[in-house]
Amino acid sequence: MNNVTMKIQADKLIMMALEEDITREDITTNSVMPEFKLGTADLICKQDGVIAGLQVFERVFKLLDEDVEIQFFFKDGDTVKNGDLIGVLKGDIRVLLSGERTALNYLQRMSGIATYTNGIVKMLEGTDITLLDTRKTTPNMRVFEKYAVKVGGGSNHRYNLSDGILLKDNHIGAAGSIKKAVEMAKNYASFVRKIEVETENLEMVKEAVDAGADIIMLDNMTPDEMKEAVAYIDGRAKTECSGNVTAEKIQSLKDIGVDYISSGALTHSAPILDLSLKNLKPVE
Amino acid sequence: MNNVTMKIQADKLIMMALEEDITREDITTNSVMPEFKLGTADLICKQDGVIAGLQVFERVFKLLDEDVEIQFFFKDGDTVKNGDLIGVLKGDIRVLLSGERTALNYLQRMSGIATYTNGIVKMLEGTDITLLDTRKTTPNMRVFEKYAVKVGGGSNHRYNLSDGILLKDNHIGAAGSIKKAVEMAKNYASFVRKIEVETENLEMVKEAVDAGADIIMLDNMTPDEMKEAVAYIDGRAKTECSGNVTAEKIQSLKDIGVDYISSGALTHSAPILDLSLKNLKPVE
Amino acid sequence: MNNVTMKIQADKLIMMALEEDITREDITTNSVMPEFKLGTADLICKQDGVIAGLQVFERVFKLLDEDVEIQFFFKDGDTVKNGDLIGVLKGDIRVLLSGERTALNYLQRMSGIATYTNGIVKMLEGTDITLLDTRKTTPNMRVFEKYAVKVGGGSNHRYNLSDGILLKDNHIGAAGSIKKAVEMAKNYASFVRKIEVETENLEMVKEAVDAGADIIMLDNMTPDEMKEAVAYIDGRAKTECSGNVTAEKIQSLKDIGVDYISSGALTHSAPILDLSLKNLKPVE
Amino acid sequence: MNNVTMKIQADKLIMMALEEDITREDITTNSVMPEFKLGTADLICKQDGVIAGLQVFERVFKLLDEDVEIQFFFKDGDTVKNGDLIGVLKGDIRVLLSGERTALNYLQRMSGIATYTNGIVKMLEGTDITLLDTRKTTPNMRVFEKYAVKVGGGSNHRYNLSDGILLKDNHIGAAGSIKKAVEMAKNYASFVRKIEVETENLEMVKEAVDAGADIIMLDNMTPDEMKEAVAYIDGRAKTECSGNVTAEKIQSLKDIGVDYISSGALTHSAPILDLSLKNLKPVE
Amino acid sequence: MNNVTMKIQADKLIMMALEEDITREDITTNSVMPEFKLGTADLICKQDGVIAGLQVFERVFKLLDEDVEIQFFFKDGDTVKNGDLIGVLKGDIRVLLSGERTALNYLQRMSGIATYTNGIVKMLEGTDITLLDTRKTTPNMRVFEKYAVKVGGGSNHRYNLSDGILLKDNHIGAAGSIKKAVEMAKNYASFVRKIEVETENLEMVKEAVDAGADIIMLDNMTPDEMKEAVAYIDGRAKTECSGNVTAEKIQSLKDIGVDYISSGALTHSAPILDLSLKNLKPVE
Amino acid sequence: MNNVTMKIQADKLIMMALEEDITREDITTNSVMPEFKLGTADLICKQDGVIAGLQVFERVFKLLDEDVEIQFFFKDGDTVKNGDLIGVLKGDIRVLLSGERTALNYLQRMSGIATYTNGIVKMLEGTDITLLDTRKTTPNMRVFEKYAVKVGGGSNHRYNLSDGILLKDNHIGAAGSIKKAVEMAKNYASFVRKIEVETENLEMVKEAVDAGADIIMLDNMTPDEMKEAVAYIDGRAKTECSGNVTAEKIQSLKDIGVDYISSGALTHSAPILDLSLKNLKPVE
Repeated sequence: MNNVTMKIQADKLIMMALEEDITREDITTNSVMPEFKLGTADLICKQDGVIAGLQVFERVFKLLDEDVEIQFFFKDGDTVKNGDLIGVLKGDIRVLLSGERTALNYLQRMSGIATYTNGIVKMLEGTDITLLDTRKTTPNMRVFEKYAVKVGGGSNHRYNLSDGILLKDNHIGAAGSIKKAVEMAKNYASFVRKIEVETENLEMVKEAVDAGADIIMLDNMTPDEMKEAVAYIDGRAKTECSGNVTAEKIQSLKDIGVDYISSGALTHSAPILDLSLKNLKPVE
Repeated sequence: MNNVTMKIQADKLIMMALEEDITREDITTNSVMPEFKLGTADLICKQDGVIAGLQVFERVFKLLDEDVEIQFFFKDGDTVKNGDLIGVLKGDIRVLLSGERTALNYLQRMSGIATYTNGIVKMLEGTDITLLDTRKTTPNMRVFEKYAVKVGGGSNHRYNLSDGILLKDNHIGAAGSIKKAVEMAKNYASFVRKIEVETENLEMVKEAVDAGADIIMLDNMTPDEMKEAVAYIDGRAKTECSGNVTAEKIQSLKDIGVDYISSGALTHSAPILDLSLKNLKPVE
Repeated sequence: MNNVTMKIQADKLIMMALEEDITREDITTNSVMPEFKLGTADLICKQDGVIAGLQVFERVFKLLDEDVEIQFFFKDGDTVKNGDLIGVLKGDIRVLLSGERTALNYLQRMSGIATYTNGIVKMLEGTDITLLDTRKTTPNMRVFEKYAVKVGGGSNHRYNLSDGILLKDNHIGAAGSIKKAVEMAKNYASFVRKIEVETENLEMVKEAVDAGADIIMLDNMTPDEMKEAVAYIDGRAKTECSGNVTAEKIQSLKDIGVDYISSGALTHSAPILDLSLKNLKPVE
Repeated sequence: MNNVTMKIQADKLIMMALEEDITREDITTNSVMPEFKLGTADLICKQDGVIAGLQVFERVFKLLDEDVEIQFFFKDGDTVKNGDLIGVLKGDIRVLLSGERTALNYLQRMSGIATYTNGIVKMLEGTDITLLDTRKTTPNMRVFEKYAVKVGGGSNHRYNLSDGILLKDNHIGAAGSIKKAVEMAKNYASFVRKIEVETENLEMVKEAVDAGADIIMLDNMTPDEMKEAVAYIDGRAKTECSGNVTAEKIQSLKDIGVDYISSGALTHSAPILDLSLKNLKPVE
Repeated sequence: MNNVTMKIQADKLIMMALEEDITREDITTNSVMPEFKLGTADLICKQDGVIAGLQVFERVFKLLDEDVEIQFFFKDGDTVKNGDLIGVLKGDIRVLLSGERTALNYLQRMSGIATYTNGIVKMLEGTDITLLDTRKTTPNMRVFEKYAVKVGGGSNHRYNLSDGILLKDNHIGAAGSIKKAVEMAKNYASFVRKIEVETENLEMVKEAVDAGADIIMLDNMTPDEMKEAVAYIDGRAKTECSGNVTAEKIQSLKDIGVDYISSGALTHSAPILDLSLKNLKPVE
Repeated sequence: MNNVTMKIQADKLIMMALEEDITREDITTNSVMPEFKLGTADLICKQDGVIAGLQVFERVFKLLDEDVEIQFFFKDGDTVKNGDLIGVLKGDIRVLLSGERTALNYLQRMSGIATYTNGIVKMLEGTDITLLDTRKTTPNMRVFEKYAVKVGGGSNHRYNLSDGILLKDNHIGAAGSIKKAVEMAKNYASFVRKIEVETENLEMVKEAVDAGADIIMLDNMTPDEMKEAVAYIDGRAKTECSGNVTAEKIQSLKDIGVDYISSGALTHSAPILDLSLKNLKPVE
């Protein structure tokens, strides 16, 4: 994760997460360790997967104490295995204890998403299909979760409602027709944005192509319907397949010819990757 | 969720989540709907489970526009079934569209946790065991996730590092002994807090009891070790069983005699409950 | 300006502007008016132009006191003339006095931009050219200034560095070639974004077309160079003319065939539109 | 600009301006430059004027990355000419690109105000008149704009409604008379504040002098009326001439004998000073 | 306290104070009162004094729940006696319980300051001396404490370092002389500010008068020295007596002829006024 | 005060306190010292007592300028005497002057509380009684004031409404009985919290013991009643004596046998400890 993004957007969220877990102090640690004590700890992987979020993990400790140092033996996107030593932390033991949970909560979730995404990306190997995330992210976690999708080999759909246009049935209804909706969107939005239209049948696909949509979402169609739609579109717009995309379903989608498949599960259903801080000990 | 909690802690987080999804405006909606238009929409359940977070769902819309009104047909903790109409929203269609994703992202996750928790609570029926959550929550979601655990029938462990004492091996090592660690914690912390000690074997359990610990965590012990520990403790402290508690494992833990079982999975591994906003239409 | 935008982005900035002008209190007003006193005041136009920012003007007072009421006789985008009564405010005289300067500072600047923009838009009448703003806005005023450009009849270029791609010479240099830069951008950014390339000569234009750029900026070229470029591009990409666009220069650009002309002056050089609060008097 | 002011007030505003221009990341730069690359760039002046805001310019980059270093060849208040090399920046090229626009937006506007102010100050040379700004500043830019006025050789009027008293007609009306208004202000406000009264004719001037006003504003009076007023006041209060002060008008005001002339145009109508970042290149 | 001040400055501080006392929820109240229950409570005075801060007291509850209503039988500045019923609160009992402590913490402290100030003001009755506070306030309480001083009959010295000039020995030393320091201050600061000089002996007093100081502080001088100083100044500047002003000392200062006496004790040593919430009971 | 607490909670409050005292700049200092000038100053004790808050004192300056250095000759909790040199500050004289008041306002108040607390703790020497503070703290000062109580030798009661349970008469009334209230609290709150019940007579004490309360507060009872209560409780719960505890009263409480005595006066009535910054001078 880029340093500028960290300063502009992540630091504030990480600081809030620390305040959530340490309203005032770590009373247990402060009870027994009144003074600074230098120590080290190991970041250990307890499950196979793809690691993501190492800078975020580090930032948690740095925001508490700039003097904490972490040496990583892996980088974001690397495959990690149960038992791997991911990194070694060195700093005031009290800070290592106080930051541990928040740092792991970020790293486990981000690595979980990267791992899950990577699994699906591998299923799509050999095709030209790009796997996309959605806006079904955890509140106040989007910047971390969308980054994790990219680390896992996926790509990002629009970031939010302000930087992408997706005309759904209600928008089309309000405008009167797909043609009218696309026209209104082109007039209203900045010319740097592409126009995407959500369609549910071939009729709508045809209208969307005629209206000059840049991207056409094929929502909850059958594989056969999608094949027909792709054939009709014939490269005049990009195509996105959407709707409860599961591992099983992926197989049936591989040869349909769509450019993109989007999946909310990447961010709302990925299980965490188990990681742990171990061997915390004073430096003699 | 209590109104005071909403004002003090939730509103700020919900507002940030809205800013995350709408940095400036919903350009799609604003393109096609320049003017206020009254409409209604249905909140539909698409999966069986336990609903949690209805006030949070409502608050998302209220923070955008106080005039949105929602009538709920269920309340938090109720069992819901695929197809159930959970509620009806009424307000400016543009606001309904702009708030939809953020509101659902909260409700689906909270209901997912309540549903998952409730499943485990049911496995423990007939015992005196209380199911607890942990601090393995999603960053900046703890207030919502711990609430959802309670809605699902579980109980909360300490909220964070500032309001509960849990002496782990590193703390004990720093203090010199369990006895010394408990003593230091009693001296340091407010007398309203109980002292919990994490133990890994019977030896430690004995020391913890002698030291006057209020709660003894039995961490990663076998069922037999735990039985022995509980017998030794004999009511002199509360007991908590911890360590990768899964559905299978639950069965073997039911008759061990511990007071509490804690599980990180409640908040880090519960899948979402599928919910959806449907039938958005103008009020004629 | 949309209510959601107001809640999400404008309110915070307006509140800060009020705090800038009223750190604690309006000591002059509070010296002489210790008690609530209902009054009215007129918002008068003192110069011909296009009005923009009426909701922002109103919001300044509403944030100080929800009971202030304003009746407007014009709406954003309307042509106004010296002497026109734009609106009538009614509320606690102390609030009208305390909010006056901040409200006018917003309205005058926004109306100034709308007026200036509208003047240039009129010069382009009869052509298919769309006038664009730039990122040369006043810090912490972008949401207001870009809105004012639209009110004046212009369109918005990308909002900021996060939601639009514009490959300049340094980016191209880092990538190695235009072709490579476009490819990298397509891989990195969300597929909902168009790719714009800044070019300085025909050679670069050709490379950009071949690379599949969606938009090609013709930067600081002569009218003849631009004509040649447009002819070469031949509809394969949108074209944007950029570089110190002045009123005089506009004439020479009208028949070149570019799709867009962008001008930093719209936001960094528009003089304010003179407006004033008059006839403040108690309601008997 | 003083370091304490920077820490207390400017940093927050600059950070917000950066967030305005970089909600999450500079996608163009990040597309083509995934890694740190050291580079330099030149800050070039493209128009004659007075430079103001160099520390603010520097701070924009420092807030993104503390390692950026800037060597300036001029200091605030210096006269600069088209073509002058104002400074050289050195740091991660990605940071130079990401901060460029925000840094220039501040520097151009502040230098524009300093330049414009300086022009009017020069017209007043040879007199004892001090040129003042007003509260007609851009929202959330006051600390920068008032500083720029001082750099240009002007002086500041009150900063805001909380730290200066200016009794206008409505205040006088509410109090009943100038005498009563001054008395109430002296009673209410801290004794460290001077009392200024706005007057529109000689009658009011006389009342203000009798009431013990420290400063008397002569608002929209003719040069002759002002001469008469100044003669009447005869040093018993400071005098401020106000009301649409333009370059032409200045000539007629020079020998009237007022102590201060205030002008809103200094901050609301000064055009920017054109400055540019050029020659960005990697350090080999 | 003025509504605008409340919105601009007090609300934020009160909200933070509530968050300090209710990080998440009032667990005791929520344990036993899961549902809304309307109730009333009496605000009772338990000590004679001057009441100050009633709107702040009310605001604490309103920020938690807009529906709480308070009827006051006294207003700020009124003398209250042990046993007086100051007001009656009506609202959700849970909100009354949750806000009680924070509301009383404000009201008791503010009333304590008003009471203490009023005691000293009474000692000065019959003289023309005005009693002033200082900047020795509790951090983040200044707006409340300076207001309470006024309610008690005192006046405010400068609010902070940004809106008043007070040249002390270090400033004079840096400038070279009092004359030079005053000159520099007049040049630097806005002309709406008076110049105060702190003096320690007659020599300095003379220099300050000659330099044109508006206010001369006589710091830690004996009554005789002060008399001599006041005689010398002879109305050419206002005079302020400063330095550990106690009740005993006041008597010796009454006929010295100074205009102002300032006392840090008003805000740093006033004991609280005892107040209490009683008779909380449900409305049947 | 722990570094983590400083980062998480204190820095924000200290920064706000600085903004309260320096809205924009220290105009006096900036008038006469335009440039950096290295200097030193002495922190002198002017009254005997216990020092508390040295890191907070230091932090005030560090937040303004990281280069300020302070050497302390005492540490928190040390006894200090009138005339003692507590520390020496070194840094930009302008920063020393600008931060002085805020730093002293914190240090004086915190040391005042530590001194006052220590006086009462000494009265309790020879007993097993622990002295406790309450929630009667100054708004937005709790973290500093509760820390000062500990430095003075006292202990902290619950931090706020969210992390301790104290069932008072209204809670008991709402629940129906003490027994029911304790049961509800145990069900609702996290199991890491102890349950305290406020009692006013022996009857209530008995009920509380039977209900299994962990702590029983004896509120406003006579010494004889308390003796009887303690005898009845006989170690089955901790006992806390509460209610206008004064120095005189302490003597009569010493042999009653209660475990804790709580006193609101520690934080709401402790006078400040007089401290001063002296001998500010340039480093030649």
